[in-house]
Amino acid sequence: MTIAEIETEVCPADGGSTHGYINDKERVLKRLSRIEGQVRGISRMVEDERYCIDVLTRISAATKALETVALGLLDDHLAHCVLDAAATGGPLAHQKIAEASEAIARLVRS
Amino acid sequence: MTIAEIETEVCPADGGSTHGYINDKERVLKRLSRIEGQVRGISRMVEDERYCIDVLTRISAATKALETVALGLLDDHLAHCVLDAAATGGPLAHQKIAEASEAIARLVRS
Amino acid sequence: MTIAEIETEVCPADGGSTHGYINDKERVLKRLSRIEGQVRGISRMVEDERYCIDVLTRISAATKALETVALGLLDDHLAHCVLDAAATGGPLAHQKIAEASEAIARLVRS
Amino acid sequence: MTIAEIETEVCPADGGSTHGYINDKERVLKRLSRIEGQVRGISRMVEDERYCIDVLTRISAATKALETVALGLLDDHLAHCVLDAAATGGPLAHQKIAEASEAIARLVRS
Repeated sequence: MTIAEIETEVCPADGGSTHGYINDKERVLKRLSRIEGQVRGISRMVEDERYCIDVLTRISAATKALETVALGLLDDHLAHCVLDAAATGGPLAHQKIAEASEAIARLVRS
Repeated sequence: MTIAEIETEVCPADGGSTHGYINDKERVLKRLSRIEGQVRGISRMVEDERYCIDVLTRISAATKALETVALGLLDDHLAHCVLDAAATGGPLAHQKIAEASEAIARLVRS
Repeated sequence: MTIAEIETEVCPADGGSTHGYINDKERVLKRLSRIEGQVRGISRMVEDERYCIDVLTRISAATKALETVALGLLDDHLAHCVLDAAATGGPLAHQKIAEASEAIARLVRS
Repeated sequence: MTIAEIETEVCPADGGSTHGYINDKERVLKRLSRIEGQVRGISRMVEDERYCIDVLTRISAATKALETVALGLLDDHLAHCVLDAAATGGPLAHQKIAEASEAIARLVRS
């Protein structure tokens, strides 16, 4: 079995999925839909030529909201995919950690 | 004349506006519309139960794109509203700087 | 055995330690010592009343260097303490993930 | 008079300096000295092989403290060098804004 096959088994992307965020899927989707609305609201503010500082305040809020979604997904990912891979052991566990660390670095630096 | 009145004159939010971003309005709106699409794409990924790490990568990209818009607006704000207020001098100039500094702090901490 | 006792066994803070960063200890200490020097250099710049923007450039560099140390420690922590706890299973594994997620959130928001 | 000469006059780096942070110099130096101590404390924690998560908590605190110093210096810079340049007007004012915007971008992205 290749790592890719093991990965699919441990953390599949299809129907039999064990993706962490599935439990929370509705909540995540609701938050994302609210963020989409926030971004649309920012566009409307720019369209209406609202005061820059007020636009910036809204952008900071949308950025924070995106970060909160990311931190939630990451926590679920660690608690499900990574824990499952770790329980299975072997190279997959290390691959999952490396992958998570890279995602964390991108978040910290974004 | 109150500070609020001076402010409206120096950096009005209406037709005679000198908001910095107006020159760039179309470009800012285009970027925001692209970010709205990015957020909608992230929702679709969650809907389709795509792999967490891939979702996180897209969230980092959307966050960076929002920051870029914010930095652009802030630069325009400094180069127009703040410079104009500074040229006028008086308490308004200091108020504009204080306001900009608070917006910068929110961006750095978000 | 309490969770605290299991924790000490899995990821002890003493001589028999399996802390991830121990392998890299010298490298981490060298980086931290360089950052300490960077901060001392920033103090000297302020002491000498050097140009603000140049001081800010150095502060950004020191901040990035601290983040890089943090990301390295976090990666080691996930690859050792968290993987070991996950292999052991039980509530400790979940506690370790929750703890790591909180540390990640502090990093992302700092 | 070249821009460089005007710049030196408006915001000199020598004895006759009007650098914003000079009023606050002692306070800035005290904060930086405290941050240097924080970094030294982090080194000691790594030396003593203290628990990773506790080390990370301290790194987040030091990072935030550096950001606070940076935001303070930036506010002073805007309120002094940039305002003075703006009052003088001309290309220098725009150069100062561009320079400040770049410093802000580095802070937001660090």
